[in-house]
Amino acid sequence: MRVIEKIAEMQSWSDRMRAEGKRIGLVPTMGYLHEGHLSLIDSAKKVSDIVVVSIFVNPTQFGPSEDYRSYPRDLEKDVELVEKRGGDIVFHPSAEEMYPEGYVTYVEVGGLTENLCGASRPGHFRGVTTVVGKLFNAVKPHIAVFGQKDAQQSIVIKRMTADLNFGVDIEVAPTIREPDGIAMSSRNTYLTQSQRSQATSLFRALGTAEQIISGGERDSDKVIGQMKEIINSQPDADIDYVSIVDAENLKPIGEIRGKVLIALAVKFGKARLIDNIIIDAG
Amino acid sequence: MRVIEKIAEMQSWSDRMRAEGKRIGLVPTMGYLHEGHLSLIDSAKKVSDIVVVSIFVNPTQFGPSEDYRSYPRDLEKDVELVEKRGGDIVFHPSAEEMYPEGYVTYVEVGGLTENLCGASRPGHFRGVTTVVGKLFNAVKPHIAVFGQKDAQQSIVIKRMTADLNFGVDIEVAPTIREPDGIAMSSRNTYLTQSQRSQATSLFRALGTAEQIISGGERDSDKVIGQMKEIINSQPDADIDYVSIVDAENLKPIGEIRGKVLIALAVKFGKARLIDNIIIDAG
Repeated sequence: MRVIEKIAEMQSWSDRMRAEGKRIGLVPTMGYLHEGHLSLIDSAKKVSDIVVVSIFVNPTQFGPSEDYRSYPRDLEKDVELVEKRGGDIVFHPSAEEMYPEGYVTYVEVGGLTENLCGASRPGHFRGVTTVVGKLFNAVKPHIAVFGQKDAQQSIVIKRMTADLNFGVDIEVAPTIREPDGIAMSSRNTYLTQSQRSQATSLFRALGTAEQIISGGERDSDKVIGQMKEIINSQPDADIDYVSIVDAENLKPIGEIRGKVLIALAVKFGKARLIDNIIIDAG
Repeated sequence: MRVIEKIAEMQSWSDRMRAEGKRIGLVPTMGYLHEGHLSLIDSAKKVSDIVVVSIFVNPTQFGPSEDYRSYPRDLEKDVELVEKRGGDIVFHPSAEEMYPEGYVTYVEVGGLTENLCGASRPGHFRGVTTVVGKLFNAVKPHIAVFGQKDAQQSIVIKRMTADLNFGVDIEVAPTIREPDGIAMSSRNTYLTQSQRSQATSLFRALGTAEQIISGGERDSDKVIGQMKEIINSQPDADIDYVSIVDAENLKPIGEIRGKVLIALAVKFGKARLIDNIIIDAG
């Protein structure tokens, strides 16, 4: 498994592959890979000749009081997992390689980044769009695969990619869950055993929302109310947001109609977990 | 001469050229081409196999009260001039092609964009870096050539290109002047005959600055004072700024040392003219 650490080396490798007519797929990750990430490699392999997995814990998408330093890392195991899953290259630049002294340029997507996670993590999406733009320029992929778990992220990245003409196809692959329904996340490792069992309430709340809506409920406040009740009955749950928004423009909606995104973020101790489902309410 | 109007068509043309091993040079312009632009084509031809000249009056770099609508345009003549000068492709997208409905993404360079033209044209450089990022993704050049007349612009673009890893070499070609010393600019067409002759004071002020500094003066306020005197003796001159800044970080300097950029912007009636020189004061 080749691990590339320098942007210039990554670019010339990609230029060579493109000149050979190879289709490059990119799976951008922050590492500490789990089945959710690995399923993205599967998705990428279906539509590319070569799959590059980037592993970079991106400092610019963490707030000052967030978990950049403590975010779990295990490059050796990650490289092994990528190899086993059939990835071709790991791109693993250092923070200094990506953000050298004097770095001052940012990519910003307006409108879509102000609510949901954008409201509680100011600057987060600016960091995400900036690093994804840089990764696109470094890896020069034809397609890139993101996970549905980060629903707002994938919508913001689709917008940025179209707006700036990156010419990269964005695919969004389904959320992969543990047997108990918890969405896979590197941050699940922060949970104590008790919090871990309490965190199953997120998936249950989403399931309940789906049921109520398919039963005919169209008032989003009522649905949100019931979801919050389920989550708040967990002693350690600290709700950041539970929202129902238009699945395209992410604007909050009062009446549930068409394609809606039901998204939530809840803290359990040190872990801030997110999850979501998209429902077509007709 | 092939004129390409669609981004997707431009991208697949560039992909083909790159696959053939051709080196693509880009000369980004707002059209109404003069010898200054055409000299950029010469520079590009020296280091590329194929030269693309983009012609796009970019709305996002004009302020609401600026001259976007009245900016001079003459596509037919421009295409003829590019052909005569040996350019290969004109890329001429519409404003709707570049900024379709729902467009919300911008590239911002911090720090370098706050003084000089950035101070009097808020949002200008955000528009410039955004459109140049889009042009880079559309044309996929190996090198791009900008004019020294827009000194701050070329420094900002160099920074953005490095920061976002565009992998494009940025060349800056010398300012081309009329016989009377006025820097060539599409906006010179706004000048009345009298203003036109008054505007030669900009070049004289820069020349005076160079003389005083080579004579030993190191106090930038004194140099600026003499420059302003020359310009203010013109009845229609309305100085926006006359500044001496570090040629790398664009920060104002009190004592003239090392490489300095002496830059100015002056309005004559409807025309806001800029000019500059770089001096190595040792």
